[in-house]
Amino acid sequence: MSGRLAVVGLGPGDPRYLTPEAGETLAGVDALYGYGPYLDRVPARAGQSRHPSDNREEGARAIAALRHAALGANVAVVSGGDPGVFAMAAAICEQIETGPDAWRALDVVFVPGITAMLAVASKIGAPLGHDFCALSLSDNLKPWPLVERRLDAAASAGFVLALYNPVSRARPWQLGNAIERLRRQLPDTTPVVFGRAVGRTDEQVSVTPLGQAAATSADMATLVIVGTRETRVIARPGRSPLVYTPRATAEVSV
Amino acid sequence: MSGRLAVVGLGPGDPRYLTPEAGETLAGVDALYGYGPYLDRVPARAGQSRHPSDNREEGARAIAALRHAALGANVAVVSGGDPGVFAMAAAICEQIETGPDAWRALDVVFVPGITAMLAVASKIGAPLGHDFCALSLSDNLKPWPLVERRLDAAASAGFVLALYNPVSRARPWQLGNAIERLRRQLPDTTPVVFGRAVGRTDEQVSVTPLGQAAATSADMATLVIVGTRETRVIARPGRSPLVYTPRATAEVSV
Repeated sequence: MSGRLAVVGLGPGDPRYLTPEAGETLAGVDALYGYGPYLDRVPARAGQSRHPSDNREEGARAIAALRHAALGANVAVVSGGDPGVFAMAAAICEQIETGPDAWRALDVVFVPGITAMLAVASKIGAPLGHDFCALSLSDNLKPWPLVERRLDAAASAGFVLALYNPVSRARPWQLGNAIERLRRQLPDTTPVVFGRAVGRTDEQVSVTPLGQAAATSADMATLVIVGTRETRVIARPGRSPLVYTPRATAEVSV
Repeated sequence: MSGRLAVVGLGPGDPRYLTPEAGETLAGVDALYGYGPYLDRVPARAGQSRHPSDNREEGARAIAALRHAALGANVAVVSGGDPGVFAMAAAICEQIETGPDAWRALDVVFVPGITAMLAVASKIGAPLGHDFCALSLSDNLKPWPLVERRLDAAASAGFVLALYNPVSRARPWQLGNAIERLRRQLPDTTPVVFGRAVGRTDEQVSVTPLGQAAATSADMATLVIVGTRETRVIARPGRSPLVYTPRATAEVSV
């Protein structure tokens, strides 16, 4: 018995973001687990079984993949973006910690991918060019007051903010609340980047001042980047603007 | 005249991290600019000129590459990791904003890469599995009191911390100071991951409790990840430990 579990990042929705390491790993496995739309991005190969599941079923998916690997199979669990950022890597570790001893004996590898904030940033310049935070706006796994506390702490200390999971059908008000909250800390002119479906044919990336930013600009496929007081927008004749946060700052208190 | 400038992320030091998009972009340019050791990772091609420069010369390198592209050439500037994270993308934007009008008319693209914190995290589990911050410990471009303020803000609000540029010959004391500072906010048992030269043959990744973490464990090629109160270490018989930060937390104040 020499089962192996690989937790693989596909990057955003364009195969040109898939690393060779991820591609080789996926080509070599017996079974693939993941959220259906992510699995659909992996080319079908003879002899590989495919086990799609729903978005909200991370725990059950992790257990099924670990059980399969513990039978001696070579198994991959896929995530969009990077598996270590609000995705399957932590879900797998949670199950390994609390599961049977055999799961701790498994060969488990994690294969990184381009996470959404890097892809969105690349489409508009360098908004993450200075210190930044990645924060999930989902309050499924943490209380909303903690999200608010983190928004305040990050914005007041001058971190750029990358907001993951800004909105979903079950969480319609969180992004609007976050924008209102950030307006207390940051000037209305602070650039906010909405990046939707980056790497897909329906990709949309835009920049709006915080004072005019609307939660309705985001959906489940959107990553939002909120700049700092120092984030700049460069207008370019005949081209889309560039947004960047300078590397240098002299700011000590904000 | 239709010059083009691509700012390209190579990922960590293993070609298996280089995305197809980055590889194709590098193969198609007339000229390559970058820090010497990064340029050395790009295969030589006939007809391409190579312009290595020193680590500290980001501004001059950006200007040289923009001038070259403005002559009508297809130019790439390379960064290790991701160019948008403490690297060349912001340096290029800074020069575009303050430079001649012609630079704002250029076709400029940014090609993301696997940044160091994702690669280091992947080698040990999922330490970035919850909200996290990326913070450069270099005080070349910001005052040290601001770094301290951000360390306090991030740790006290329960963010995992990824520390870039922890130490260099010219900055020997900053990491030690940061570790001392974090000990005031976090328990001595908090897991600290030192990831050195990930993707290279001399790769080393280890975990140490904050109370025993020593700045001497890091050098210029190291990325340090400091967990939260909730970050876990899973001991595994016959295997290296896994480190992860659970997706869920009930913590509101810390």
